[in-house]
Amino acid sequence: MSKIAIAIHGGAGTILKKDLTPEKEAAYLAALDNALAAGYSVLEKGGSSLDAVEQAVVSLENTPLFNAGKGSVFTKNGTHEMDASIMEGKTKMAGAVSLITGIKNPVSLARLVMEKSEHVFMAGEGALEFAKLHHCKTENSDYFYDEYRFQQWQAIKNADTFQLDHATNKDKKFGTVGAVAIDVNGTIAAATSTGGMTNKKFGRVGDSPMIGAGTYANNQTCGISCTGSGEFFIRGVVAYDVSCLMEYKGLSLQEACDTVIKNRLPKIGGDGGLIGVDKNGNLAFSFNTEGMYRGKKTSNETYVGIYK
Amino acid sequence: MSKIAIAIHGGAGTILKKDLTPEKEAAYLAALDNALAAGYSVLEKGGSSLDAVEQAVVSLENTPLFNAGKGSVFTKNGTHEMDASIMEGKTKMAGAVSLITGIKNPVSLARLVMEKSEHVFMAGEGALEFAKLHHCKTENSDYFYDEYRFQQWQAIKNADTFQLDHATNKDKKFGTVGAVAIDVNGTIAAATSTGGMTNKKFGRVGDSPMIGAGTYANNQTCGISCTGSGEFFIRGVVAYDVSCLMEYKGLSLQEACDTVIKNRLPKIGGDGGLIGVDKNGNLAFSFNTEGMYRGKKTSNETYVGIYK
Repeated sequence: MSKIAIAIHGGAGTILKKDLTPEKEAAYLAALDNALAAGYSVLEKGGSSLDAVEQAVVSLENTPLFNAGKGSVFTKNGTHEMDASIMEGKTKMAGAVSLITGIKNPVSLARLVMEKSEHVFMAGEGALEFAKLHHCKTENSDYFYDEYRFQQWQAIKNADTFQLDHATNKDKKFGTVGAVAIDVNGTIAAATSTGGMTNKKFGRVGDSPMIGAGTYANNQTCGISCTGSGEFFIRGVVAYDVSCLMEYKGLSLQEACDTVIKNRLPKIGGDGGLIGVDKNGNLAFSFNTEGMYRGKKTSNETYVGIYK
Repeated sequence: MSKIAIAIHGGAGTILKKDLTPEKEAAYLAALDNALAAGYSVLEKGGSSLDAVEQAVVSLENTPLFNAGKGSVFTKNGTHEMDASIMEGKTKMAGAVSLITGIKNPVSLARLVMEKSEHVFMAGEGALEFAKLHHCKTENSDYFYDEYRFQQWQAIKNADTFQLDHATNKDKKFGTVGAVAIDVNGTIAAATSTGGMTNKKFGRVGDSPMIGAGTYANNQTCGISCTGSGEFFIRGVVAYDVSCLMEYKGLSLQEACDTVIKNRLPKIGGDGGLIGVDKNGNLAFSFNTEGMYRGKKTSNETYVGIYK
């Protein structure tokens, strides 16, 4: 029997204690606690890591606090375009969706793609057709409306692309959620979900739905879920890079995560963080930003944190 | 001054001599020769590897013989949805597009995404908006019509997903084109373009537009362009895996390519092939199928081939 373990994140960025009221901080920590509990209870009952990461991410998608599912930011057109992916480390099966609207839990749609199709990645209207066929739960735009997100969008909606991206870079909050876990059978899984960038246009796809970049799982090495400046995570193939450093160079999980996040990623200009689990049930956090909403739980430790 | 070199492919699969007429074979070889010449002439004049791979892929996109650009297969809806990506190994800048219609040269749109936006990956209608803004050359559906492709589609258009995928698997022709090159400054580039799968639906995205899976370039290691069963290339993060085997395990380009294509990829059930170039101007082909349309050119060698 393997040691069970789970870690989650709710995004990385310039998250400073002075910017969060005690109430807001408590709300974030409670949401992280809830998501950890949702995932861990699956593992504790002998359930699969795939179910555990899905349930943890569903929990994070269902709160408006994080930029994924219900809390997704507004696009340039005032809609919500979401991305998600999931991977299982024993079979290396994976599923991913991008640019989807109106789906309550994008991570569950990614899992449907993995389990009910011969494909890995579906995007846009076509992915929604597939969702409909499989009775994936939808919500109307009221569900995704959040006053705070709306004001974020209003503040920059008339900016051109460059102002937009500059503003986004200045803001440096990378809204993504994710989970990694190992179950009693030693199977690793990872999942990531995001609402993308506020005022996003041009059908931009980030790293979250990209297997190898935002999400990766392999029973021989690790499970990884990333959050950060997506373009750099794609160019760095970040999640798989951690796995390769373990498999090909023999680094430990924490060493591999830190090598990628603190050395390789900054070299190309990227910032953000990731969470990881290895085949022995070790968990790792690594981020090169001021903070990362995060949590982890094993049989003898429960931790949630925000700041560095 | 570095040794200049270029390699190209036009897809891998069950390509047997008995299935090609001498005329058809000659047409394929001539098209490969033309694409090689288009890319190599850029390198010979001291041009960049980025220009060379773009020009080689444009040449392959402009012939109806290969499944990319003009020769793209039909989707379930009778349209053409194309994917492409490009990457430069010095800066590790990259661009990619997916699910685009009506663009004459998807590889050039991928390059525009890389050079004229702060994003790496754009898809669908949004990518087309970006293309319009940058006056990317379009063509109407007549341009993409090809009697042979139309008949391929008619033969399976009423099949359901599973018959479709089974038929596709039986057919085992992976329609993709790609190029890798190194220029006089030692900069490596790689590009890939595809028309996807005949009768494709659900907005399926394959490995071709995915940096790390279908395309990768890094001046310290290699440039790679893949062709094959896209879902497996995504799960195997194939292009970046070759690079990691060179960087982290010290394998040569050919050893790394063969390890991935002949050992790691078949283990998860994938077939196809790839082309590669390393920082010393060595070129490599590797495929686990009956054939791969391919070519390479250096100052002292020109080769085009189809079968094993």
